[in-house]
Amino acid sequence: MTQHPHPNLGTPSKLVDGGLRIVALGGISEIGRNMTVYETNGKLLIVDCGVLFPEDNQPGIDLILPDFSYIRDRLNDVVGLFLTHGHEDHIGAVPYLLRERGDIPVYGSPLTIALISAKCKEHRISPLTREVTEGNREDVGPFELEFVAVNHSIPDALAVAIHTKAGTVLHTGDFKMDQLPLDGRITDLRTFARLGEEGVDLFLVDSTNADVPGFTPSEREIMPALNRVIASTKRRVIVASFSSHVHRVQQVIDTAALHNRRVAFIGRSMIRNMKIAEDMGYLNVPSGILFDARELDNYDDRVVLICTGSQGEPMAALSRMANGDHQIRVGDGDTVILASSLIPGNENSVFRVINELTRFGAKVVHKANAMVHVSGHAAAGELLYCYNIVKPKYVLPVHGEWRHLKANAEIAIQSGVPRENAFIIENGIVVDLVNHEAEVVGAVPCGFVYVDGQSIGDITESSLKDRRILGEEGFISVIVVIESQTGKIVAGPDIHARGFNEDEALFDEVRGQIEKALTAAVAEGVNGTHQLSQVVRRTIGGWVGQKHRRRPMIVPVVVEV
Amino acid sequence: MTQHPHPNLGTPSKLVDGGLRIVALGGISEIGRNMTVYETNGKLLIVDCGVLFPEDNQPGIDLILPDFSYIRDRLNDVVGLFLTHGHEDHIGAVPYLLRERGDIPVYGSPLTIALISAKCKEHRISPLTREVTEGNREDVGPFELEFVAVNHSIPDALAVAIHTKAGTVLHTGDFKMDQLPLDGRITDLRTFARLGEEGVDLFLVDSTNADVPGFTPSEREIMPALNRVIASTKRRVIVASFSSHVHRVQQVIDTAALHNRRVAFIGRSMIRNMKIAEDMGYLNVPSGILFDARELDNYDDRVVLICTGSQGEPMAALSRMANGDHQIRVGDGDTVILASSLIPGNENSVFRVINELTRFGAKVVHKANAMVHVSGHAAAGELLYCYNIVKPKYVLPVHGEWRHLKANAEIAIQSGVPRENAFIIENGIVVDLVNHEAEVVGAVPCGFVYVDGQSIGDITESSLKDRRILGEEGFISVIVVIESQTGKIVAGPDIHARGFNEDEALFDEVRGQIEKALTAAVAEGVNGTHQLSQVVRRTIGGWVGQKHRRRPMIVPVVVEV
Repeated sequence: MTQHPHPNLGTPSKLVDGGLRIVALGGISEIGRNMTVYETNGKLLIVDCGVLFPEDNQPGIDLILPDFSYIRDRLNDVVGLFLTHGHEDHIGAVPYLLRERGDIPVYGSPLTIALISAKCKEHRISPLTREVTEGNREDVGPFELEFVAVNHSIPDALAVAIHTKAGTVLHTGDFKMDQLPLDGRITDLRTFARLGEEGVDLFLVDSTNADVPGFTPSEREIMPALNRVIASTKRRVIVASFSSHVHRVQQVIDTAALHNRRVAFIGRSMIRNMKIAEDMGYLNVPSGILFDARELDNYDDRVVLICTGSQGEPMAALSRMANGDHQIRVGDGDTVILASSLIPGNENSVFRVINELTRFGAKVVHKANAMVHVSGHAAAGELLYCYNIVKPKYVLPVHGEWRHLKANAEIAIQSGVPRENAFIIENGIVVDLVNHEAEVVGAVPCGFVYVDGQSIGDITESSLKDRRILGEEGFISVIVVIESQTGKIVAGPDIHARGFNEDEALFDEVRGQIEKALTAAVAEGVNGTHQLSQVVRRTIGGWVGQKHRRRPMIVPVVVEV
Repeated sequence: MTQHPHPNLGTPSKLVDGGLRIVALGGISEIGRNMTVYETNGKLLIVDCGVLFPEDNQPGIDLILPDFSYIRDRLNDVVGLFLTHGHEDHIGAVPYLLRERGDIPVYGSPLTIALISAKCKEHRISPLTREVTEGNREDVGPFELEFVAVNHSIPDALAVAIHTKAGTVLHTGDFKMDQLPLDGRITDLRTFARLGEEGVDLFLVDSTNADVPGFTPSEREIMPALNRVIASTKRRVIVASFSSHVHRVQQVIDTAALHNRRVAFIGRSMIRNMKIAEDMGYLNVPSGILFDARELDNYDDRVVLICTGSQGEPMAALSRMANGDHQIRVGDGDTVILASSLIPGNENSVFRVINELTRFGAKVVHKANAMVHVSGHAAAGELLYCYNIVKPKYVLPVHGEWRHLKANAEIAIQSGVPRENAFIIENGIVVDLVNHEAEVVGAVPCGFVYVDGQSIGDITESSLKDRRILGEEGFISVIVVIESQTGKIVAGPDIHARGFNEDEALFDEVRGQIEKALTAAVAEGVNGTHQLSQVVRRTIGGWVGQKHRRRPMIVPVVVEV
């Protein structure tokens, strides 16, 4: 297993003729913002273009995008963008890419194309789309793409085999191997096997559940728990799930129908996506079962409400119900089912929602107390099947943090992939496949691009560092107005603090110290607002550190008049 | 089940003669800062006095204390403080209480007293301690206390039966019912049964795992996994655990001995606590097995290092190893075992540590991939045993968030406690037991007391709100100096922003707008620095909201000279 730390790698030399270059701009060492750029013969193919959601050490950030700098000067060489499936971490950044060049052809399965079109519409962008389906082969510039059905927690997901002169790459996208999926559309191992027979040089494999032993249960296996909960509930049932999880919603609708309950969708994205899924035939809704949630008052308790907010997102329907500021009032005897994963980092928000719903008298069922969720990703056992069927020459684990990538590489190695052929890399690291031989050849700059309100990429690490200090410690600003000729203080020190201490009298003692320090500095010939403001900073910084054992941000301003 | 929301309750009237009043000042609706005040005959008994660790919406806070206001004027009436066991969430706030009255007698088991004494020493406080042990009966003022052995994730934990004229209360503290504990000291159900026979009027019960079905496995059951991992490792083994979990450490030492590995403790609290535990006979250390971690270079790889940091705490040993800034360098082939729980909210920190250790080449074993942890709290099945043995008249679930309290109450009700006799309350709610009848009689003010550096209780909710805004959005401060006579701007607008945008040129366009708005306001007769600063606030606030869709904190300062 070859681990490649970024800092030791230089800029790669020019790609040799007939070679294939692979660069991930996101999705490696993180779960989110998946984006891989393939290059051959001067042309670029992009696979996926997703967003990453911020962690607690990235405060105030709305979204994190892949860093497009590597391809920015070469956008005209892009022959296509292929989307493996319709999840945010694979399609969420597409509108931002299309802002830079609007006519990149976007390839995907019918559902994926419907979802990206709806998303682009919200951004007032009309993408140039090309529907493809499993079994299709399509020449996209110098790349021959072959699409392969895979099963995931959203319908119509595709893997892609990329046939080039340099060799064949198989890129799974997200997948699992549910052998009895609701729609009968299994991960196409027969095609994986045929590709393996023909020779897969490089295998890019979803690592999300590589550190989970065994097999991911079938989606069907949550039906008994759903059924038990809904059967035993006399009052309303509220089910929160991801708004793209069509099969999960299908099972909830089927169970509702079984118990003669009417169903309503709640939450903008849930309503929008389920309309798309029903119109396209992915979701089967018994006629007459649906009603409009705004008319809930006209219905008795025999309803199932399907809503967003399973991760405790503050603006989503379920969190607003938990806070009592949604039109739907959760009450005594209602049952809430969180039919969803619990994404690490969301625990506090989710448990807050559960506590508040419980306080209103609801019974809350979630994956810790009933089998109401199964994962959408292949666990270690499934991955082993995959490696044994494909028998790739080289392996590049993607879609995971370091621990997932490592676990995935170890599975590949167990299956017989030579240790030195399993690459654990980072975003920006360049792998060249030349004549069926893969090698790490360098690295390109690849950072985080933060979206915050209207700004894209303006928030830097240094702004985030400032935010962390401000958020933990607050700030103290000190304003002193001095006469430019004499250096005499004519107003101030005016001290303002936020997030530090409410008590203004606290600063009385340091005000005199600042005056004294400034007067002494001026007497010693220190001048200029910058120099004098440093005197202020040292004085108040020292005082607050020694006396209060705190390190708020200090903002000294000396103004000359 | 009677749920008592705080806001609807008034101040309770005076406690009737012969009555017992119970007020929790912490630990209800939260996991942490446990503290319950009992009053009878004009005297107060306190059970536990712990700290709560802050959540992500309480940025920069070091600790949260119980609110002592309810007892502050009555500290001289306190006849004793009984500590059920030595965990931080039960003893961490004792030094802060003793600062207010230093000679409160502190009761606890020998280990608990040793741990609180060590903690107080760090605060330069010498507490007045009284060792008690299971089976003891002790008159503490008008309270007759009877101490009962319970099993928990720290040795020597005690429950307490409080016998008063009003009736008997049984307060479990934290406990589980391991039937084969390492030290053979089981939760004393025979005494629970006898107390039940005599009549337990009110039962205060640990709720932490009430929503976990079944039974908590025995501590012994992690031994096979520890053994397997250590047996299969050729290089060093690093085990992270809580520094008070003597039995966990005992098992690690025993396994190390089995495999002829030497053992070292790492981390201040681990070294301190294990010294205490060994000296007192709670920890059995085979002679010659221990070495000083500072001399690690003199040993080969056949070592087991036992350290702190299992929750990803940034300053603890394991996190520093993960960041590469600890003297111990984790390397290829080392194995790290997180023999610990994963406290909700710590996931991101812990997974960051796991990723970094994996990146260094270590194999990381944790509760998600091996049975290297069992909980310290009784699960639903155990609680049911308890209720059936004690058969209390009233139940007051403690030590839990709302979802845990509710689950615990439901178990009591299943066992036959009348629904209206199971109280789900909040901190500050007052329950009176009079002549064996319990009733909620009111509420007293009870807030959060934040410790931040040297300050205790100075940080308010409003400061925290400011910190949240600053942390998410940053701030913009605008300074304008005007001539007091004419209102003419003589310096500024001087604009400083942090955590917002690094680009100063951004503000060029709004500077003119501010000047214009101020000049217009002065012309209209607006004067005074406060009024004018509001003009500045509105101008820049409007600009940043409309143009940037952001809401940073605005700090306008108008200075007159």
